[in-house]
Amino acid sequence: MPVITAFATSPDRGRGLARDMRVRWALEEVGQTYDVRLLSFAAMKEPDHLALHPFGQIPTYEEDGLVLFESGAIVLHIAQRHPGLLPADPHGRARAISWMFAALNTIEPPIVERQNAILAEGKEAWTAQRLPLVEDRIRRRLAELARHLDAADWLDGGFSAADLLMVTVLRRLPGSGLVEEHPNLAAYVARGEARPAYQRAFAAQLAVFEASQ
Amino acid sequence: MPVITAFATSPDRGRGLARDMRVRWALEEVGQTYDVRLLSFAAMKEPDHLALHPFGQIPTYEEDGLVLFESGAIVLHIAQRHPGLLPADPHGRARAISWMFAALNTIEPPIVERQNAILAEGKEAWTAQRLPLVEDRIRRRLAELARHLDAADWLDGGFSAADLLMVTVLRRLPGSGLVEEHPNLAAYVARGEARPAYQRAFAAQLAVFEASQ
Repeated sequence: MPVITAFATSPDRGRGLARDMRVRWALEEVGQTYDVRLLSFAAMKEPDHLALHPFGQIPTYEEDGLVLFESGAIVLHIAQRHPGLLPADPHGRARAISWMFAALNTIEPPIVERQNAILAEGKEAWTAQRLPLVEDRIRRRLAELARHLDAADWLDGGFSAADLLMVTVLRRLPGSGLVEEHPNLAAYVARGEARPAYQRAFAAQLAVFEASQ
Repeated sequence: MPVITAFATSPDRGRGLARDMRVRWALEEVGQTYDVRLLSFAAMKEPDHLALHPFGQIPTYEEDGLVLFESGAIVLHIAQRHPGLLPADPHGRARAISWMFAALNTIEPPIVERQNAILAEGKEAWTAQRLPLVEDRIRRRLAELARHLDAADWLDGGFSAADLLMVTVLRRLPGSGLVEEHPNLAAYVARGEARPAYQRAFAAQLAVFEASQ
C-alpha cells in the first residue's frame, strides 16, 4: 500500500488546498487505498524528510522502494499505473498530459504569485496597489481557459488527471471572485468537487486537520 | 517529421531562453529531425494558432495528427517515444519525471515571478524595494537544489529530460548572479550547455533570430 505524507496541521485548516489533496483524490479515483504519514513543519525540514523530498515539502509518495515527490508527478504516476485517469488511446493520453502541465506551469504560477502577494507581502506598502496587476495576469489565463472549456464538462473529452489538477489549481483562489467571473469555470470546479472520489479525499484531509485541533 | 512552432522574432534575441529551446534540445538529444513554423506575436493570437495552443503561446508540437502544447509535456512525449532522455528502469523513470515537474513547478515559478517584476513591473515604484524579496524566494529554492545536486553531474544518475528542463529553467536568470552563488549549480548549467545537442539547438534558434534582423 502506498504511503503519502501530509501536513500534521494544514495551514489551510483542512479546506483541501494543500497539495496532498491532489494525490488523495487521484488515489480515490482509481480505488487505491493508502497510508498517510503526518509531518510537522519542523519535521519537513529534517534530514529524514529531505532525503525523500529535496525541497522539504509535502506530499511524497512511497511504494515498493520507490520515492516520488511533486504532486503533479505523483498524480501522473498513479494515472499511468491504474486505469481511469488518462485516456487509453495514445493521442488522447498525450493531450491530457499537455493539460496536466498547463494546469501546473501556465495556470498555477500566477495564482501562487497572488498567494505570495497576500501571504508573504501582505503587510508591504505596495501590495494594495500591486494586487490588481497580479490578478489581471490570472484573469488573462482564466479567460483563455474559459474560452477553451466553452460548454464542455472537462478539458479534453472525459474526466482525466488533467481535470483533477486543474480543479485543485482553480480552488487556490478562494474569496477572489476570479473563477466566478466565468460561470463555465465555476461550474467546472463544482463538477470536480461533486465527484465521490473528491469528496472522500476532502473528508480524509479535513479529518486530519480536525483531529489536530 | 514533427513540426514545432517558435517566435519569428524572439524577445530574447536568440539567447535560447524561449521555450522552443527545450523542445529543440530534446529533439536533438534523440536525433529526431524536425520542421519549424515561425509565428509573429499577432499570429500567435489568431484562431488558427489558438486551435493548437489554447493560451496563444509557443511552442506547439504536431506529428501524425497529434497536437501538443506546453514545453514540459512535449519534452516528456519525446522522452517517452525515443531512448536517451529517461532511464529504462521504471523507478528511475518515475524519479526523473518527479524532477521534470520540480523544474517547472517548484524552481521555475519564482524565476518567472522575477521576470514579471522586471519586465511587467519594472517601472513601478515598488520594484526596486520588492525585487530582493522575490530573489530571496529564488535563493531558497536554489540552495535546496544545490544541496541535492552536491557533487553529482546530474540530478538523479545520468543526464535525463529532467536535467534538460532544469538547465533551461536556471538559464532564465541571466545577469542576476543567483545561480553563480552556488558553484556546483553554475557548473551544472555549463555542463548542460556543453552538450552537442544543446549547442545544435541553440545555434538553430539563434539563426532564426539573426535572419529576422
